[in-house]
Amino acid sequence: MFESAEIGHAIDKETYEAEVPALREALLEAQFELQQQNRFPVIVLINGIEGAGKGETVKLLNEWMDPRLIEVRTFDQQTDEELARPPAWRYWRMLPAKGRMGVFFGNWYSQMLQGRVHGLFKDAVLDQGINGAERLEKMLCNEGALIFKFWFHLSKQQMKARLKLLQDDPLHSWRISPLDWQQSQTYDKFVKYGERVIRRTSRDYAPWHIIEGVDPHYRSLAVGKILLAGLQAALKRPNLKPDKVSAAPLTTSVDRLGLLDALDMSQQLTKKDYEEQLITEQARLSGLLRDKRMRKHALVAVFEGNDAAGKGGAIRRVAAALDPRQYSIVPIAAPTEEERAQPYLWRFWRHIPARGKFTIFDRSWYGRVLVERIEGFCTPADWMRAYGEINDFEEQIDASNVIVVKFWLAIDKQTQLERFQEREQIPFKRFKITEDDWRNREKWDDYRAAVGDMVDRTSTEVSPWTLVEANDKRWARVKVLRTINRALEAAFEKSDKHDKKRK
Amino acid sequence: MFESAEIGHAIDKETYEAEVPALREALLEAQFELQQQNRFPVIVLINGIEGAGKGETVKLLNEWMDPRLIEVRTFDQQTDEELARPPAWRYWRMLPAKGRMGVFFGNWYSQMLQGRVHGLFKDAVLDQGINGAERLEKMLCNEGALIFKFWFHLSKQQMKARLKLLQDDPLHSWRISPLDWQQSQTYDKFVKYGERVIRRTSRDYAPWHIIEGVDPHYRSLAVGKILLAGLQAALKRPNLKPDKVSAAPLTTSVDRLGLLDALDMSQQLTKKDYEEQLITEQARLSGLLRDKRMRKHALVAVFEGNDAAGKGGAIRRVAAALDPRQYSIVPIAAPTEEERAQPYLWRFWRHIPARGKFTIFDRSWYGRVLVERIEGFCTPADWMRAYGEINDFEEQIDASNVIVVKFWLAIDKQTQLERFQEREQIPFKRFKITEDDWRNREKWDDYRAAVGDMVDRTSTEVSPWTLVEANDKRWARVKVLRTINRALEAAFEKSDKHDKKRK
Repeated sequence: MFESAEIGHAIDKETYEAEVPALREALLEAQFELQQQNRFPVIVLINGIEGAGKGETVKLLNEWMDPRLIEVRTFDQQTDEELARPPAWRYWRMLPAKGRMGVFFGNWYSQMLQGRVHGLFKDAVLDQGINGAERLEKMLCNEGALIFKFWFHLSKQQMKARLKLLQDDPLHSWRISPLDWQQSQTYDKFVKYGERVIRRTSRDYAPWHIIEGVDPHYRSLAVGKILLAGLQAALKRPNLKPDKVSAAPLTTSVDRLGLLDALDMSQQLTKKDYEEQLITEQARLSGLLRDKRMRKHALVAVFEGNDAAGKGGAIRRVAAALDPRQYSIVPIAAPTEEERAQPYLWRFWRHIPARGKFTIFDRSWYGRVLVERIEGFCTPADWMRAYGEINDFEEQIDASNVIVVKFWLAIDKQTQLERFQEREQIPFKRFKITEDDWRNREKWDDYRAAVGDMVDRTSTEVSPWTLVEANDKRWARVKVLRTINRALEAAFEKSDKHDKKRK
Repeated sequence: MFESAEIGHAIDKETYEAEVPALREALLEAQFELQQQNRFPVIVLINGIEGAGKGETVKLLNEWMDPRLIEVRTFDQQTDEELARPPAWRYWRMLPAKGRMGVFFGNWYSQMLQGRVHGLFKDAVLDQGINGAERLEKMLCNEGALIFKFWFHLSKQQMKARLKLLQDDPLHSWRISPLDWQQSQTYDKFVKYGERVIRRTSRDYAPWHIIEGVDPHYRSLAVGKILLAGLQAALKRPNLKPDKVSAAPLTTSVDRLGLLDALDMSQQLTKKDYEEQLITEQARLSGLLRDKRMRKHALVAVFEGNDAAGKGGAIRRVAAALDPRQYSIVPIAAPTEEERAQPYLWRFWRHIPARGKFTIFDRSWYGRVLVERIEGFCTPADWMRAYGEINDFEEQIDASNVIVVKFWLAIDKQTQLERFQEREQIPFKRFKITEDDWRNREKWDDYRAAVGDMVDRTSTEVSPWTLVEANDKRWARVKVLRTINRALEAAFEKSDKHDKKRK
């Protein structure tokens, strides 16, 4: 795979100096066009052999282009805020916004390669990492991002010569870390696993570019031209999304019977039973969140449901059990300007709780397959791929001990009507009912179908949906609390078992 | 000062239960009105004696009101990301946006009180803290924030009884930290310094409310009613800013001679001198930023100047000296939606570099006293108070070893005209010249006056302005680099001396 990057590519000084001015001008032009269009971000991943000119090339690109539109990100040591959250959080928080360019040193590939080379894990885990990277990049491209992946290569001999050279130059010696030197010994491994990674993650929408790093003129021109060609093509394309194929419509069940039909909407609790059970479940939740084992977990509760199904009331009963310093509630409304400049999951990633904390989402990422689908705020291809992306997202955060509990609060159409009318009467509830609510009501059947699809496609072992019969608010509130408690207990038991095994 | 909070305030259960429903409804109503108006944020500071019901009251407020519009923030241990930046950064990043309510436990007051009580510093440092808090709150109020400061009080005897009670209750025992117990011994100190703090920071725009904490009914009703009255009054007021008095116009010097007139605009460098000096200064900068002592400092460079004065070119010459992993460039344009929902300095605080890093601001917080003043984007009172707020801001970050270097790149009117015309000819520069630039040019004299006022009022010992004669780009670039280098060297020497002294 690296053969053609070990043949001594070189470009003489004259050719280089003749070509650079035009290239530079064209790059600047493309960069400003990128900013003007403000349609997509550019993500540049920098990987490869130590000493192959990664840093120098990025530095040069910053000189050629307008550095004010480029963000260079390094990912070395994780900070404690990053360590308290799922691994991908640190990449999400650093994504460049539309119209800008982000250069990622020490990205997800470096992390998996270093881990494998140093023997922290075997191939199976490496392959998991590879699959994760692929899904992440696919999602980013689907959201419009333009991704360049550069692998700077040197043959073993070239690398040794290069490292020696750098060591001898006092101006450069600060760059060679002990880890770099170690790589000189582990070159074979690095190249072997590097090839595995490149082979599996080179895709039409985000191909790898292997650059021979020996000659500065060659590598600079090569990278510059690849960037320019990619940028120019993307700026001309009306739409960057790769899978804009016409998506096959989802089919509804032949007998038109859905999950929601199967709910027993007459479920209810007497006032006495409610008060007893509510206080029991609240005490239980309070105890569980104070449990020592909670320090290793985080908790996310997602509340979706029909308008007026009682999400707010249920959330308040959950919150009432807890110390306000331990939870936070994130109401999801229309995205802000900064959120619109990012992939759609970005605004949820930014609120993922640190270990020991509890975040309640009042509406959530499922808006993509509910309101956005129904109102046409995104294309069918967008919301159809969202099912898979959401499953990935939840699997990722689950893998970092974030417990995810998801509720759909269901009421019937008549109950909704009564609650709407009631709300219009009560002064401090009148804010809660708007024109939008009446309009949504007209789309009752569309929502019903969308909810069915959503549950079918995103109720997973890792994070199942709980459908809550919410015609009776008491029943709903107790069921919500009890479900959260059971999920916490199950997670705690699982980690107990895991701890025992390790001992 | 605390006498009337030790007299055993109490409210009987019947009165309490009779009053709560109406209070609750009114609070909810006010809260939704706050969200609807979306005009100002509410900041609630919670301080006082341990065991006086701080946590319980906040929990109750979250039950009474809509917890989705309240953010409860605790500030215990600083994270490593916070430790790498000036102390106030952690509060700025947690400020509630307009329309929302933030409850701050463990805020700036707790920090200064705990430090003083535990003898980490003396009264002089406490008083510095007090003054800092006062300036911060004054600024927040000027930006429209509504601030409530609650001090929950208990007499010494009451506190002892209360702590004993809590200890005996297994459900509450998790709340009593060793530090709390320690407070029981240091009660006298805590009350003494607490009084000092309260006395000096109770202001018309942000008064303290002292609440006797013994009786839950009393304290809950008291806090609820204070919040309600304050909210209702603020929601009715057309404008929350306290100092909307007509500001006296700034006077220009009688002989109409300004700082900019004193510049020798004919300063220039030959190509040869330029190339030599540029490379020397770039190498010097590169070395300084790699100096070990840089780990204790951060660097901020502010670039302001006439349109077409060559800010971009100067920034590129600075950047070219450096590893792109070490600096970032923040171009300041119109604020985003999330930035508009915060006090105006917020969008600069979010980019303050961590130790060891360098941030270049391409335009800056000085926009407030330049474009915002001239275009009338803020009131005269707003930009006039900005001078003081900016000085405070820079003094604060300087105190955390952030070196601030500020440049005004000045060109004359004729040079600007030539550069505008030139830009319109060059394809890859045509983006740089817009209608706005021509419009700004018509306000040449206004900008000149504003720059004079700005430099007079914000060129401080801590962070002086450097006026750069920029008719000759070469001269300007070298001067910029040299100034940064001198500032770095001066800061390093200062900290060397400081280190020696300590040894």
